[in-house]
Amino acid sequence: MKVDGKHYRTIWIKEDDARVVQIIDQRRLPHQLVIEELRTVAEVATAIKEMHVRGAGLIGATAGYGMYIAALKAAGEGDEARAFDEALARAGACLKATRPTAVNLAWAVERQLKRIAGSGTREEKIAVALETAREIADEDADFCKRIGQHGLKLIRRMSRKKGGAPVNVLTHCNAGWLAFVDYGSATAPIYAAHDAGIPVHVWVDETRPRSQGAKLTAWELGQHGVPHTVIADNTGGHLMQHGMVDMVIVGTDRTTRTGDVANKIGTYLKALAAKDNKVPFYVALPSSSFDWAMRDGVKDIPIEERGSEEVKHADGLVDGRHVEVLVTPKESPAANYGFDVTPHRLVTGLITERGICKANEKGIVGLFAEQAEAMG
Amino acid sequence: MKVDGKHYRTIWIKEDDARVVQIIDQRRLPHQLVIEELRTVAEVATAIKEMHVRGAGLIGATAGYGMYIAALKAAGEGDEARAFDEALARAGACLKATRPTAVNLAWAVERQLKRIAGSGTREEKIAVALETAREIADEDADFCKRIGQHGLKLIRRMSRKKGGAPVNVLTHCNAGWLAFVDYGSATAPIYAAHDAGIPVHVWVDETRPRSQGAKLTAWELGQHGVPHTVIADNTGGHLMQHGMVDMVIVGTDRTTRTGDVANKIGTYLKALAAKDNKVPFYVALPSSSFDWAMRDGVKDIPIEERGSEEVKHADGLVDGRHVEVLVTPKESPAANYGFDVTPHRLVTGLITERGICKANEKGIVGLFAEQAEAMG
Repeated sequence: MKVDGKHYRTIWIKEDDARVVQIIDQRRLPHQLVIEELRTVAEVATAIKEMHVRGAGLIGATAGYGMYIAALKAAGEGDEARAFDEALARAGACLKATRPTAVNLAWAVERQLKRIAGSGTREEKIAVALETAREIADEDADFCKRIGQHGLKLIRRMSRKKGGAPVNVLTHCNAGWLAFVDYGSATAPIYAAHDAGIPVHVWVDETRPRSQGAKLTAWELGQHGVPHTVIADNTGGHLMQHGMVDMVIVGTDRTTRTGDVANKIGTYLKALAAKDNKVPFYVALPSSSFDWAMRDGVKDIPIEERGSEEVKHADGLVDGRHVEVLVTPKESPAANYGFDVTPHRLVTGLITERGICKANEKGIVGLFAEQAEAMG
Repeated sequence: MKVDGKHYRTIWIKEDDARVVQIIDQRRLPHQLVIEELRTVAEVATAIKEMHVRGAGLIGATAGYGMYIAALKAAGEGDEARAFDEALARAGACLKATRPTAVNLAWAVERQLKRIAGSGTREEKIAVALETAREIADEDADFCKRIGQHGLKLIRRMSRKKGGAPVNVLTHCNAGWLAFVDYGSATAPIYAAHDAGIPVHVWVDETRPRSQGAKLTAWELGQHGVPHTVIADNTGGHLMQHGMVDMVIVGTDRTTRTGDVANKIGTYLKALAAKDNKVPFYVALPSSSFDWAMRDGVKDIPIEERGSEEVKHADGLVDGRHVEVLVTPKESPAANYGFDVTPHRLVTGLITERGICKANEKGIVGLFAEQAEAMG
């Protein structure tokens, strides 16, 4: 999407040097747009581990490009074919270890290893690695674009119902293009509507403790020119009670085959408020986010507990400097659950790359029968 | 309650100089305990206006002491009785203008003016003003103490049901002793249980954007020795889904005669989660918080919109300095609704100074028939 009027993806090959991968260092957003160059597997691993890049789709794409860099480097390491393969395997293991729970990471690495193993000379292997990295990124962007096209219909319908008045969408956390390669999941329908000239306005949940909404979603919407307003996470219920939200669209880290949705902590509270006020609540996701083996999300999806320091602190800009401030008493303990699970009964529908379905097994398997069968 | 092992109220007459009123400057909490001395009406007005003190009960008590200071000063202003009365009236108007929506403020000023007008010599008027200020403060503390004793029964019962395991109470914002003269409303049952030896643990909602939970509630619970854990406002739903909350107790800024509860923004979301998970949701309040004229809270209670800067920023301690940091993009708009309304259907009960009642007109008027009649 657009930054300062220019189209960006979150990851790309450097224009005048195909040996270099470039990313946006998201830790510096929204206050600074820093483009970082990745030249070694170690740099790629650090970028993933230290969250210069984050989000399921983007982590997968970064791992894909990381394996291309690994192939480039392996070509310089002695003559034997076995040495090359071993170097690649080591790089893959290193990348996979950066964030062990990110499913897309292992998936992208495996896909690369399989493709590269099947090719001929070193030069061919490198070319295949680059092609595969591009494929992974393009597929991610393509899936998000399709999600946008399907979701656009919902916004267009709401816009007609409102006689062309701006459609107010509430979103939580960042399931935007910064979490993918382009478009995003939850934001894709919003960008599609905006680009189609449908007036749309986004309520952006701040999303404490890491404030991805305030920092990332607000930034990307602002850069693309989409009207938006940042709100404290406490605010959505009040807005819905007063008819100020037309629909909620969020992303998901994992959705069961029965339609239970794990997403950033606080999503469940917004779903409850949506239900209580008859506001449609949609979840946008590429099918890679389905967990075909799982049926009871609240019971079975493991919820990551993160460090308490994130809750005790807030960070931002003061006098041009990015600092972290202590909000709570120094001695007070804090707890930091990363996600919660919204039961499918609260979800109006799922917006996927193949279309929109009900958040239940029949609806989901109806769209993705072959995946559900293969992986269930 | 206790600070560093010593008992404090939020406002008191200086021990060795009865012409000076002392308060805790709450803007400096939790990082510093600063005792401020108030010697003039202007200083009292500033303390209220700039939120050195806040909370309905404490604002009322501060206005009461402010009128005592006004009487002291007026005694030095010429000889005529009329000059004295005029000085007092001016002081009252000045205090009332500091936070025009705070009901207790006007109430305390009027009570003082009426009492002082009825007394004799200047010396007698000053004595009456001091006595009345003390009465207002003592009544506030006494009502909160009673709320604590009634609420204690609920916690004791839950403790028995859990075989003595700690009772987990979730609270939102600060309806603690810092918002009153002592004990607090929502915290009164918690302090009563803790002091009675019943194991209790409090989940403290951070309460963005002003973070009164993280700053004030966590501080006062910690100082009194009550086990607690600070959480992001997004977290309560997840905790309730997993049986980690036994009851919710919050305060209120205004409750209708039908039991609809206006309280800090985000309270409604917690009430929805409590209902969805069969967790009892209580509201603790002195009867002065009832609005006897109002019936439909969601429709009729005006919701204050505050400056967007509070949402865009966070503040806290870095390198021993208290600073405010910008979290969002500089250009992103933000909205800041101060309160929301929890419909009575989500409220399990109201804990008042006269006992616990259902959150409906029958329950409320049953306890407060004479007030409901006089003011309805």
